[in-house]
Amino acid sequence: MDFTYDAVTEGYRERLLAFMDEHVYPAEARLGERTGDWGPPPVLDELRRHARARGLWNLFLPGEHGAGLTNLQYAPLAEIMGRSPSLAPAALNCAAPDTGNMELLAGFGTPWQRERWLEPLLDGRIRSAFCMTEPDVASSDATNVATRIERDGDTYVVNGRKWFATGGMSPHCELLVVMGKSDPDGPRHRQQSMVLVPRGTPGVTVRRGLRSFGYDDGDHGGHAEIEFRDVRVPAGHLLGGEGDGFAIAQARLGPGRIHHCMRLIGMAERALELMCRRVTDRVAFGRPIAEQGVVQDWIAGSRVRIEQARLLVLKTAWLMDTVGNQGAHTEIQAIKIAVPSAVEWIVDKAIQAHGAAGVSQDTPLAGLWSRARTIRIADGPDEVHRRSLARRELRRYR
Amino acid sequence: MDFTYDAVTEGYRERLLAFMDEHVYPAEARLGERTGDWGPPPVLDELRRHARARGLWNLFLPGEHGAGLTNLQYAPLAEIMGRSPSLAPAALNCAAPDTGNMELLAGFGTPWQRERWLEPLLDGRIRSAFCMTEPDVASSDATNVATRIERDGDTYVVNGRKWFATGGMSPHCELLVVMGKSDPDGPRHRQQSMVLVPRGTPGVTVRRGLRSFGYDDGDHGGHAEIEFRDVRVPAGHLLGGEGDGFAIAQARLGPGRIHHCMRLIGMAERALELMCRRVTDRVAFGRPIAEQGVVQDWIAGSRVRIEQARLLVLKTAWLMDTVGNQGAHTEIQAIKIAVPSAVEWIVDKAIQAHGAAGVSQDTPLAGLWSRARTIRIADGPDEVHRRSLARRELRRYR
Amino acid sequence: MDFTYDAVTEGYRERLLAFMDEHVYPAEARLGERTGDWGPPPVLDELRRHARARGLWNLFLPGEHGAGLTNLQYAPLAEIMGRSPSLAPAALNCAAPDTGNMELLAGFGTPWQRERWLEPLLDGRIRSAFCMTEPDVASSDATNVATRIERDGDTYVVNGRKWFATGGMSPHCELLVVMGKSDPDGPRHRQQSMVLVPRGTPGVTVRRGLRSFGYDDGDHGGHAEIEFRDVRVPAGHLLGGEGDGFAIAQARLGPGRIHHCMRLIGMAERALELMCRRVTDRVAFGRPIAEQGVVQDWIAGSRVRIEQARLLVLKTAWLMDTVGNQGAHTEIQAIKIAVPSAVEWIVDKAIQAHGAAGVSQDTPLAGLWSRARTIRIADGPDEVHRRSLARRELRRYR
Amino acid sequence: MDFTYDAVTEGYRERLLAFMDEHVYPAEARLGERTGDWGPPPVLDELRRHARARGLWNLFLPGEHGAGLTNLQYAPLAEIMGRSPSLAPAALNCAAPDTGNMELLAGFGTPWQRERWLEPLLDGRIRSAFCMTEPDVASSDATNVATRIERDGDTYVVNGRKWFATGGMSPHCELLVVMGKSDPDGPRHRQQSMVLVPRGTPGVTVRRGLRSFGYDDGDHGGHAEIEFRDVRVPAGHLLGGEGDGFAIAQARLGPGRIHHCMRLIGMAERALELMCRRVTDRVAFGRPIAEQGVVQDWIAGSRVRIEQARLLVLKTAWLMDTVGNQGAHTEIQAIKIAVPSAVEWIVDKAIQAHGAAGVSQDTPLAGLWSRARTIRIADGPDEVHRRSLARRELRRYR
Repeated sequence: MDFTYDAVTEGYRERLLAFMDEHVYPAEARLGERTGDWGPPPVLDELRRHARARGLWNLFLPGEHGAGLTNLQYAPLAEIMGRSPSLAPAALNCAAPDTGNMELLAGFGTPWQRERWLEPLLDGRIRSAFCMTEPDVASSDATNVATRIERDGDTYVVNGRKWFATGGMSPHCELLVVMGKSDPDGPRHRQQSMVLVPRGTPGVTVRRGLRSFGYDDGDHGGHAEIEFRDVRVPAGHLLGGEGDGFAIAQARLGPGRIHHCMRLIGMAERALELMCRRVTDRVAFGRPIAEQGVVQDWIAGSRVRIEQARLLVLKTAWLMDTVGNQGAHTEIQAIKIAVPSAVEWIVDKAIQAHGAAGVSQDTPLAGLWSRARTIRIADGPDEVHRRSLARRELRRYR
Repeated sequence: MDFTYDAVTEGYRERLLAFMDEHVYPAEARLGERTGDWGPPPVLDELRRHARARGLWNLFLPGEHGAGLTNLQYAPLAEIMGRSPSLAPAALNCAAPDTGNMELLAGFGTPWQRERWLEPLLDGRIRSAFCMTEPDVASSDATNVATRIERDGDTYVVNGRKWFATGGMSPHCELLVVMGKSDPDGPRHRQQSMVLVPRGTPGVTVRRGLRSFGYDDGDHGGHAEIEFRDVRVPAGHLLGGEGDGFAIAQARLGPGRIHHCMRLIGMAERALELMCRRVTDRVAFGRPIAEQGVVQDWIAGSRVRIEQARLLVLKTAWLMDTVGNQGAHTEIQAIKIAVPSAVEWIVDKAIQAHGAAGVSQDTPLAGLWSRARTIRIADGPDEVHRRSLARRELRRYR
Repeated sequence: MDFTYDAVTEGYRERLLAFMDEHVYPAEARLGERTGDWGPPPVLDELRRHARARGLWNLFLPGEHGAGLTNLQYAPLAEIMGRSPSLAPAALNCAAPDTGNMELLAGFGTPWQRERWLEPLLDGRIRSAFCMTEPDVASSDATNVATRIERDGDTYVVNGRKWFATGGMSPHCELLVVMGKSDPDGPRHRQQSMVLVPRGTPGVTVRRGLRSFGYDDGDHGGHAEIEFRDVRVPAGHLLGGEGDGFAIAQARLGPGRIHHCMRLIGMAERALELMCRRVTDRVAFGRPIAEQGVVQDWIAGSRVRIEQARLLVLKTAWLMDTVGNQGAHTEIQAIKIAVPSAVEWIVDKAIQAHGAAGVSQDTPLAGLWSRARTIRIADGPDEVHRRSLARRELRRYR
Repeated sequence: MDFTYDAVTEGYRERLLAFMDEHVYPAEARLGERTGDWGPPPVLDELRRHARARGLWNLFLPGEHGAGLTNLQYAPLAEIMGRSPSLAPAALNCAAPDTGNMELLAGFGTPWQRERWLEPLLDGRIRSAFCMTEPDVASSDATNVATRIERDGDTYVVNGRKWFATGGMSPHCELLVVMGKSDPDGPRHRQQSMVLVPRGTPGVTVRRGLRSFGYDDGDHGGHAEIEFRDVRVPAGHLLGGEGDGFAIAQARLGPGRIHHCMRLIGMAERALELMCRRVTDRVAFGRPIAEQGVVQDWIAGSRVRIEQARLLVLKTAWLMDTVGNQGAHTEIQAIKIAVPSAVEWIVDKAIQAHGAAGVSQDTPLAGLWSRARTIRIADGPDEVHRRSLARRELRRYR
């Protein structure tokens, strides 16, 4: 057992930390300058050029198409990016949902699909969205998916309504990865398929952007509600085989969840740093707030939660590398249960320590909180993961 | 001891519940139609006409100027208004911060001040803002107030910067009640004074609207940052006497806090109702979510928290009526500590039960949450109240 | 609505508070002097004589047989007794489980049964136990009861094993009220009957005393495990009719739960007082512990929890008096959910504030904690009450 | 980074797990057979012989005197022992407080001291106690220590009163390691010294055994209150130099805390296993309790807490091995804060899942709970560690 990062990781960490200090944090002040209603701030383009020039690009992607890092090597880097979540992941082309979509294309795409979409995504020329959740059903139960994907000659016809398709409002979004039912009477986990739908396909209508608390999350492409009415795509747009939809979604969710958790830990570190600085500066009732026992309790509680969360994420990454995503299933659930709520707790305390500034746009805290809170729902609500993890635990004693 | 509402209260409750059903809830769908950037939705005018016609107007104000209800009579009515907090309080002319400002004018205003501002406020023709919190200091400690109010001949000169002046962005806001230091070297609680500043006075600059978790809260007039640079008002604009600022602020905060808590309980009831309806309708893994034990735990926990919170608020109202705001000091602190966090817990569970819809604009829940969370900071953060309440408790045993 | 105690209550409170100060608290030092292994401390007899002489006797019992108080009148008295739970309730002949057993005899007993057992119980000459919980099944589900009560000619034959029969180890215990199944194939809530079994009846074997945490709870008669093997009692020992067992148990549990909650609030007040005194006296790192912010947080949190718990209990008592136990069903569940866990929280903080002394026999705190913790299980675990309360809430919206 | 145990650890784990299955768990039924009032159960001698024969002896002690394991190697072994905390640690001669006392003698003892006490301790012939906490002062602040150790010619004279000297009631206890003030006017952390006092020395009076939640903890030697009145020991009984007391105590507390935490994790695993088995076996309302969502929530929450706690302890052990106890100071505080409360939570849920059996002597759960709860106070209450950790964190940003 050994708790040191390897040399590759340390090298990347050093370069990434320098990049954050030199480029990302200074750019945060310009986050508000948006291109149109939903476009990213212009400063992002600049950051992307710098990042790429420094070899900080596509770090998330294992194998030949990306930087080739293991999950354990990538984890501490994703954490650092999480410290500035509206800029850093996108700047390094490591932002959800593109990361997950690129993984799917790299893993399940045909050569043509990879050339058509994976290459421009890896190159940062286009963005993409993942269309899974539906407004009308409890999407945590995959058998509830109501969107239909039906074969009709050489084409697939898609009908349904999706929402919270993150990135779908971005003017650069060109690809929609859509989950639907191709065989409603098939076995429970073979009913679903996944197709690649260009956003401009006739019948695709982006209805509106959903908000998360008061945020439109325009800086990461918003959350779109999208209607699919008799949308036809060539049969070659099927990702994997018919009936593979559930398995592909599962393959996507494992890394997706760990990336979320890694970044969340970075957000928690940021919040803790802001809290410590704030309470040192502010004076109430004759002494710095930092000397209040309750505030010290928050700080200690934050540090302990962060350390525990990070270790659990790192061990999960290590397991994914050594025994595979399937073997790490329980741990992936464990981090999905543990990390967002821990980070939510920490950010809440940092907000409280800032008073009114904490809920306002003058600190990143309220926005960080909204992200952490939303992830308690996204990719399956905590409750579903807890139930599943408990059942696995119970089986050990039968 | 008796836990029934009196006949006056029951009569108002009946009329108010009918008004909510017939007018307010149906109008919620039109909340999004705003007048300009910060104006209220046009439907509000309609609601105000209806409310007034039904005698549901200025219920908050005891004495001759208002409906003449006691705190105990008003409490259950404020709770009902809280069920639709963006519309109902304003519809009945019972919305903060106007309520508090009207109380101050009724209690401390000169006949001229009352004619000039109280009458149009009572009549619903103008709105107002309360300028206390400052961005640069910990405002929970009143001695930190940095804004200056200096006598210069027949005028007072105001210099300083305030923020989170709720209502200050509204196009109808005409009056700013401003707290500042008139005697920085005086005794701790005699350094402050309060002046009435028309928003159009030269030197007053509304800098921007602050957000709360992404929301601009435009429906209740936003939260303004306002700069006062050499702002001159006639000496007759002083509220009360010089040095009375702290005492007046205290007088305002007691009822203000209980009104907040009353409305919060209504918000919690609304969230619980939405949660119960949602989990009954949605099916996951073969049965309604309502049958999940964890969801039942949330519902039971919500009901128990609401009952306890309401009783504590009602007893506090009764104490304020019988022994005065000063005698109810501890209880006012207790509700400020207990109610917002309980309501936050409940709304959080309702959000979780709604999945993605819960954080979106499709339910009022995320907005309710933001209100509850913000009140853990507004009017003094929980921590200040807890410390003060503890010290009082400790004194009992010395 | 009115939150003052009536004159009768105030009169009793005054006398009871004086009795506590003059007799009960001073006697606590002699709690350790036990009569034999399980007998009460000799000082109890002395206290009982004093209490009776002052008219502080059988206060719990409404109607002609007792003091005739309402639940709302009795509640604040039970709270005061709870401040010294090992002595005061027994001193006033208001200790569980005798209280519940006397209620049953008064409500359902035949004249003969009342003469035979109610009179000596009211007179304090004998003690009793209630035999409901069984070691081998989940007793929260009444249909699980495995003990059999079978009619055989003029007698009933009891077979089964009960445990946690509180009071059953006391040398003064003469009556066992036993719940069992008389008609296992009857309708769900008509399968059970209740019989009165003299402890000396052949076939009754008291196996051992159960502990709660490390305590044998000898001061209130221990918790007995009792075996019933072919125990025969005359048919006239049946309480109520055959099949009435479940209904009688329910009748007993309502008042039983509220009495527990009333006393628990007194325990919380005691713990809070001890905490306040301790932290005022002790100095660490140069100042009294009372000045630590975290400790102040505990104190404020305790006071707020106590106020809310008390109000909910008082309202429940009022409801029981005005609409009956059945009409107060939800509220009785609510207090059972809310009060023990709140009190547990408070006592835990008081323990922590005392350091090692808090877990030891030198303060009553660890013992109080054990009581509060155990009541989260006794009379139905919290989880069963929460589920039931949630279902009732859900029905409101269907 | 690597999360596998090394070969040495794996070898020991395998042997220890076999020993637990073959000897320890079966012996638990005989725990109640005590030798006299405070002696260990006779079965312990048997277990010690078996353990020693298998080379499972003194595993805790690094260096030549013990098994020579690193902290990281010992951690998972201590965890396994913690599964049966009343038997396993003592069976392997790895029980507190002897472990800490042996570490001190190995690290600071003179050759004579080591021969006189370390050898019989390592051999398991005698037991020992550590006398630090005092009843009259807040012992978390070392400057509060009131016991005096005064030089008088060739002897030291000890006067004072200690309590919660764990192990001090054991008939086999022969050595008391006593902390006291030798130079009350010296620098804050040089005022204290430590002396080795044979329990039979004139002037030493063991007053009584303290309880922890009703338990006398006789199986691990009780918690003694000991009076020292003019107790004289030769100067050669001083451990280290005069004024070294604080430093020695600190040296002892680091490993002591991590050992506690390791064992606590084993207790949590035991509680979780018992909970899983129980809920699978018991049926309520027509289905196994294991299918209740709330129970599944407990199980998932337990598993996640255990994983996080274990990783934090292992990393701390690794840090102690690589950068020393001083370098691991923050992490040692972090585990002291995090682990006992997490384990307390888990055991509480296991108790609740067991109903009345959970609080009784029929399961080990109530006893495990008492241990976890007590460790939130022992070796410095959580609050002191949290404050210290927070201050360190705050210094990073100044």
